[in-house]
Amino acid sequence: MKERNPPHIALAHAYWRAHLSAGDIAIDATCGNGYDTLALAKLLLNHPDSLILGFDIQSSALEKTDSLLKQALTEEHLERVLFHRRCHSEIDQIPLPLPPKLIVYNLGYLPGADKSITTMTPSTLSSLEKAITLLTPEQGALSITCYPGHPEGKKEEDAVLEWAEKLPSERWQVCHHRWLNRGASPSLLWIRSTA
Amino acid sequence: MKERNPPHIALAHAYWRAHLSAGDIAIDATCGNGYDTLALAKLLLNHPDSLILGFDIQSSALEKTDSLLKQALTEEHLERVLFHRRCHSEIDQIPLPLPPKLIVYNLGYLPGADKSITTMTPSTLSSLEKAITLLTPEQGALSITCYPGHPEGKKEEDAVLEWAEKLPSERWQVCHHRWLNRGASPSLLWIRSTA
Repeated sequence: MKERNPPHIALAHAYWRAHLSAGDIAIDATCGNGYDTLALAKLLLNHPDSLILGFDIQSSALEKTDSLLKQALTEEHLERVLFHRRCHSEIDQIPLPLPPKLIVYNLGYLPGADKSITTMTPSTLSSLEKAITLLTPEQGALSITCYPGHPEGKKEEDAVLEWAEKLPSERWQVCHHRWLNRGASPSLLWIRSTA
Repeated sequence: MKERNPPHIALAHAYWRAHLSAGDIAIDATCGNGYDTLALAKLLLNHPDSLILGFDIQSSALEKTDSLLKQALTEEHLERVLFHRRCHSEIDQIPLPLPPKLIVYNLGYLPGADKSITTMTPSTLSSLEKAITLLTPEQGALSITCYPGHPEGKKEEDAVLEWAEKLPSERWQVCHHRWLNRGASPSLLWIRSTA
């Protein structure tokens, strides 16, 4: 955990590293600027069975992500990143050879783009409801970064935490991480199967 | 993190493991039933320079801890666990060959003993203020388990979080972990030097 990333990113990456294995499938439900997709690609794509799905409702986000990945990945690896320009609430509409082991959400708006296009609480909750049923039984995880630093982000975080509080504890371990001395900095919700 | 301990204990142990190195000194500021002291002993005492200090204000806690350790440790290891029957707010009164790398707090009352003898918020805050100045510069950490499931514990947690929020972020990384779908279950505060 000595990465130079902000602590919520360093911790998320540590969880992903510990959780994922060769051959797994992961979904980046909110590609945004592509950094999460790239981090997942680096963890997984050395194995030929691994796949990454990337969702974003904005073309500009997928273009940024694609451009970032092209700088860092081989052609063969790029072929196993499948982009979908659709809302993450349609996450259950894509056929997959295996259930995903990890689904990653980075809520809020695309940095540097139109701030009026942000994840909206109802579609986020609808997406999370679907995502949790898609995961590999017994071994799946959700990683959700929330941005309580702006009013809409705070409302969305509250709604996501309220949803997560109700997940059955015999089935899901739900840990919310807040960095206390950094103002309303991003928080990380890590939900994994208890099995 | 596939331990069968409750999640706050499993995560605390994972942090300690990642943080401690051979030869380090650690302090268990609240020995209680001794489980934290034992976990620290197992991580550290194979190295002949490592020391563990254990504090508790209750003789019965130190007796329980000593008895637990005697079942699990060699004589040579036991010699490097030094008990102090005094309040953890006197944590700065003990001379040490080196600053401690980790100080562990498990707040609340001793399980199975007199529930009226609990850590008290003023002495906890006083102890934490001293503890953070004792730590190895650049590499120290505090691990604090809070028990918001009873009213005094909730007040103590609130006070500790308020204290932690004010730690300078250029010096300390402060992460509070709550397990959301387990009622008011114990929470873990992990504070480490940002260096």
